[in-house]
Amino acid sequence: MSGNRPPFVHRSVVRFTHTDPAGYVFFPRYFEKLQATVEDWFNKALGLSYADYIMKERLGLPTAKTECEFQKPCFLGEELDIALFLEKIGNSSLHIRFEGSVGGEPRLIARSILVVISTESGRPQRIDDDLRQRLEAYQGSTS
Amino acid sequence: MSGNRPPFVHRSVVRFTHTDPAGYVFFPRYFEKLQATVEDWFNKALGLSYADYIMKERLGLPTAKTECEFQKPCFLGEELDIALFLEKIGNSSLHIRFEGSVGGEPRLIARSILVVISTESGRPQRIDDDLRQRLEAYQGSTS
Amino acid sequence: MSGNRPPFVHRSVVRFTHTDPAGYVFFPRYFEKLQATVEDWFNKALGLSYADYIMKERLGLPTAKTECEFQKPCFLGEELDIALFLEKIGNSSLHIRFEGSVGGEPRLIARSILVVISTESGRPQRIDDDLRQRLEAYQGSTS
Amino acid sequence: MSGNRPPFVHRSVVRFTHTDPAGYVFFPRYFEKLQATVEDWFNKALGLSYADYIMKERLGLPTAKTECEFQKPCFLGEELDIALFLEKIGNSSLHIRFEGSVGGEPRLIARSILVVISTESGRPQRIDDDLRQRLEAYQGSTS
Repeated sequence: MSGNRPPFVHRSVVRFTHTDPAGYVFFPRYFEKLQATVEDWFNKALGLSYADYIMKERLGLPTAKTECEFQKPCFLGEELDIALFLEKIGNSSLHIRFEGSVGGEPRLIARSILVVISTESGRPQRIDDDLRQRLEAYQGSTS
Repeated sequence: MSGNRPPFVHRSVVRFTHTDPAGYVFFPRYFEKLQATVEDWFNKALGLSYADYIMKERLGLPTAKTECEFQKPCFLGEELDIALFLEKIGNSSLHIRFEGSVGGEPRLIARSILVVISTESGRPQRIDDDLRQRLEAYQGSTS
Repeated sequence: MSGNRPPFVHRSVVRFTHTDPAGYVFFPRYFEKLQATVEDWFNKALGLSYADYIMKERLGLPTAKTECEFQKPCFLGEELDIALFLEKIGNSSLHIRFEGSVGGEPRLIARSILVVISTESGRPQRIDDDLRQRLEAYQGSTS
Repeated sequence: MSGNRPPFVHRSVVRFTHTDPAGYVFFPRYFEKLQATVEDWFNKALGLSYADYIMKERLGLPTAKTECEFQKPCFLGEELDIALFLEKIGNSSLHIRFEGSVGGEPRLIARSILVVISTESGRPQRIDDDLRQRLEAYQGSTS
């Protein structure tokens, strides 16, 4: 039976560094925010250290594919909430859906495929049992 | 009859500023490079000034939707070529396909929808005749 | 008599987006963090809205001069605290000293001169009475 | 006898990605351009591969200290020329002065101290003879 906990949400303010001459968030900055969402989700929802995962275990979690629809622009000073839904756990890949909103109003929807790799070899690596259990627990509780 | 000129290609070097702890290009930086490709295409292939378009004519060309598959990572020092194909010209939108390669080897393929807007109102605006003619000429010659 | 409240401190985590192939923070990212410190200080310590200041009042606060000594590198996952000291309030300028540390250990020291400008004219503008009072209150309480 | 060759100049266009809501270059982006200047100077003026230096020789060239005065803002579409002057060669450090201009008009002046380190140990490392000779040749010819 699936759970009904809310998904992990990363909140960040729209800063000067994110905005363009039109006053909107410059779209590549949204992908930095998707990345920040994954990092905080690792640390706070999965209970792992993203930094140790990269620097000590020499594993990486690059984005192999991503798509994003920018439904409505975000402006300087707004607080963007990005919710993370884990749609599928593959052999070495994660399928993630992101829903971005400001005060409950939708701003973006994105889907990414992340792949676990060894940073030494650059090759995909099977998701280990510990990580898989944590991922399944998250997926089960929020679906 | 369609032409057979090669598409516009934006070449840029992979710099320290683009790379992550694994030595690869950090994926949001690729979207900065797609944006740079559009800017240079405007200036060099369409014969318009992108800067004037934004700052003087108060028009914008935000990316409303984008998807990108990162086929193979890029490394510090490599030169990434991004070719721009104009797939469709809508009422106020452009459908663009980008093909990124290093020395002819595919690295990424992306598709974006850009929308012409007024930066005053933030609303979509019909592509004017001058821009449309230039777009059609490009599309015809490279398809 | 001067006060003895602690200075405003902006805390931020070192993310993947800040780091370079050596695993250190890439130095231009520190200046983004100095800027974020100023924005949060405006909002939280001075009680003003930085976003409104820029977008509604059409004022800017560009950095006219800055210097930074990077005493020790910062790594992925570390939390960097940046304390803001207001050293001098000029006619239209602010002289700010930043002290960055991780867990109390010094990492950087920076000094910047920010200038209040009109974003319409691009010219320096006298600091108005309301802002000046708030600045003096901050300066007095933390010196 | 010193030479009289012109210094190495890195030219780059001001892109959307560099600009802020006021239409100016956001100041941390200038430091990315100083870094790009060093990389191209390495490749083109010193005749070394910056990428190999980092990724193969496992050496780094972090900026230990920098100061920059932004004399006049730069705008979207402008071409910024950054000239590199090598002021001093230390045991493991380089003292560099950068002069930025657009069409000959001064925009910024910066000074940085870069330190050669081993990226394995993170410690300063003596500039080797080959690099020192190239640095002295550059310094001699442009002073």
